[in-house]
Amino acid sequence: MIVVLAGGVGAARFLEGVVQVAPADRVTAIVNTGDDFELHGLLISPDLDIVTSTLAGVIDREQGWGIAGDTTACMEWLGRLGGPTWFKLGDRDLALHIRRTALLRGGATLSQVADSFRRALGVAVRLVPMSDDPAPTHVLTAAGEFHFEEYFVQRRAQDEVRGVRLHAAGPAAPAPGVIELIASAEVVLVAPSNPVVSVGPILALPGVREALRATAAPVVAVSPIVGGAAIKGPAVPLMRAVGMEASALGVARAYADFLDAIVIDQVDGELTPAIEALGLGVAVTDTIMRGPAEKAALARVALAIATVSRSPG
Amino acid sequence: MIVVLAGGVGAARFLEGVVQVAPADRVTAIVNTGDDFELHGLLISPDLDIVTSTLAGVIDREQGWGIAGDTTACMEWLGRLGGPTWFKLGDRDLALHIRRTALLRGGATLSQVADSFRRALGVAVRLVPMSDDPAPTHVLTAAGEFHFEEYFVQRRAQDEVRGVRLHAAGPAAPAPGVIELIASAEVVLVAPSNPVVSVGPILALPGVREALRATAAPVVAVSPIVGGAAIKGPAVPLMRAVGMEASALGVARAYADFLDAIVIDQVDGELTPAIEALGLGVAVTDTIMRGPAEKAALARVALAIATVSRSPG
Repeated sequence: MIVVLAGGVGAARFLEGVVQVAPADRVTAIVNTGDDFELHGLLISPDLDIVTSTLAGVIDREQGWGIAGDTTACMEWLGRLGGPTWFKLGDRDLALHIRRTALLRGGATLSQVADSFRRALGVAVRLVPMSDDPAPTHVLTAAGEFHFEEYFVQRRAQDEVRGVRLHAAGPAAPAPGVIELIASAEVVLVAPSNPVVSVGPILALPGVREALRATAAPVVAVSPIVGGAAIKGPAVPLMRAVGMEASALGVARAYADFLDAIVIDQVDGELTPAIEALGLGVAVTDTIMRGPAEKAALARVALAIATVSRSPG
Repeated sequence: MIVVLAGGVGAARFLEGVVQVAPADRVTAIVNTGDDFELHGLLISPDLDIVTSTLAGVIDREQGWGIAGDTTACMEWLGRLGGPTWFKLGDRDLALHIRRTALLRGGATLSQVADSFRRALGVAVRLVPMSDDPAPTHVLTAAGEFHFEEYFVQRRAQDEVRGVRLHAAGPAAPAPGVIELIASAEVVLVAPSNPVVSVGPILALPGVREALRATAAPVVAVSPIVGGAAIKGPAVPLMRAVGMEASALGVARAYADFLDAIVIDQVDGELTPAIEALGLGVAVTDTIMRGPAEKAALARVALAIATVSRSPG
């Protein structure tokens, strides 16, 4: 089994590459739920929905999230009735949140919901939430402490970031199977996702980091930082706020205790000696996933370096 | 204050007439909530929504319920995800249910939600749910006991009806103000709604029937039964199942203990002596509300006979 630690848009695109070069039913993604939150009384799982919708081929490719061709009739009326409108929810998109909330309130776990949704939408990749417990990620800023989506979407990532509070590190437990998946994997890939708020919450869950260190599988990350910038999202200020260098080297350092190798972009080739000095293998390639061919090529490079990496676990 | 006991479509159309002949801010509707139910984890209030949307001018006039021009993108996806699809919910319509559910789960009462919705949609008529407590109406049939909406919509009113169970008669209490509104009204009108499942639940709430008997205001009903048939909906089998005659006379008898007068259709003129024998005033007119003019005329007749009726209360 190929196990992929996944956040949202970057991970979803990377997974589209992985399923081009490996059988989809041999791939499992462990997906960040630190961004999950409640709005309009509905439980929203941004990263799970992005990954599911992308692999189902129904994603709004321009945005990277939401359903292609979606409308916003419900949202407009929610606003008319005095509801919050800062988080855009399409009509089709809302069906995921309504159904998820109904199933969870009826006693289902998030793992069960995620599995039922990916099956309903014809996704062969197994999708496992990192936890069935609430584990919200908060961003500590000069203006106060906010849920990640409030910081990122409502406040447009404009506040000065001072730190991050991962509730994944609190009472939340890994979802059933997460530790076993890592332990029994043939390969573990860390998708090019934000190391602080996408991969960070998964790593913060009790036992996950230890499982990654112990697994016999090679663990290979793809750097989401290219030339010191994030492809998408607020990785740079968040990395700096938690004391990471906002570079592929910073990503390598953050994962060094469990990582065997890292795939970095060709513009960062000069970082290779410094990363190798951490005891990690390095593959240098084009990591910008413009289309299906680039996605497949990136996945192929990540799997190739995995096969030549030896896990210390 | 003109107080109108209201069900769904018939009541909504009648209220459109009332506000043409009386200032809308002097009109309060006490609305049946016996049809309320939960679907997809959302709390749906069919009659409140029909009355609110009709008076707001946003109703789908063809159907009599739902929002004009509404789409069903969310519903289609709810079905795709395995959710029930027997109760059609438009995208705009869903906003009412989502927002209502969020407000109720946040601690608001249904009265507060109804008031906030009618204000948000610019409705001057005060809308008061009959109760803030759950008071579902069940239909007892040869095939089992069903919530009214299951009987009516999901099972298409095809089961043989044996009786009705009004949970309004159970632990539910009238919403704040309901008893006082009836006691202090200038006129009480009973809209042309189903006497069993629309007006019946309101009457079954503790103290309501007594308040209608005691009020100094004249109480005038408009018969929803014309020539032995209902304008809309399953009134005839339901009336028969609870031992009422399915006629304007049957309606008059059902309300005789608190009624001062009734407005019946011209096709039922021959019933006048029998109704008068119950001690009630009778106005005979065209009760079919084809358009605004007929609605206003019907409201005018109801208010006119009220002014010449003397309440025994």
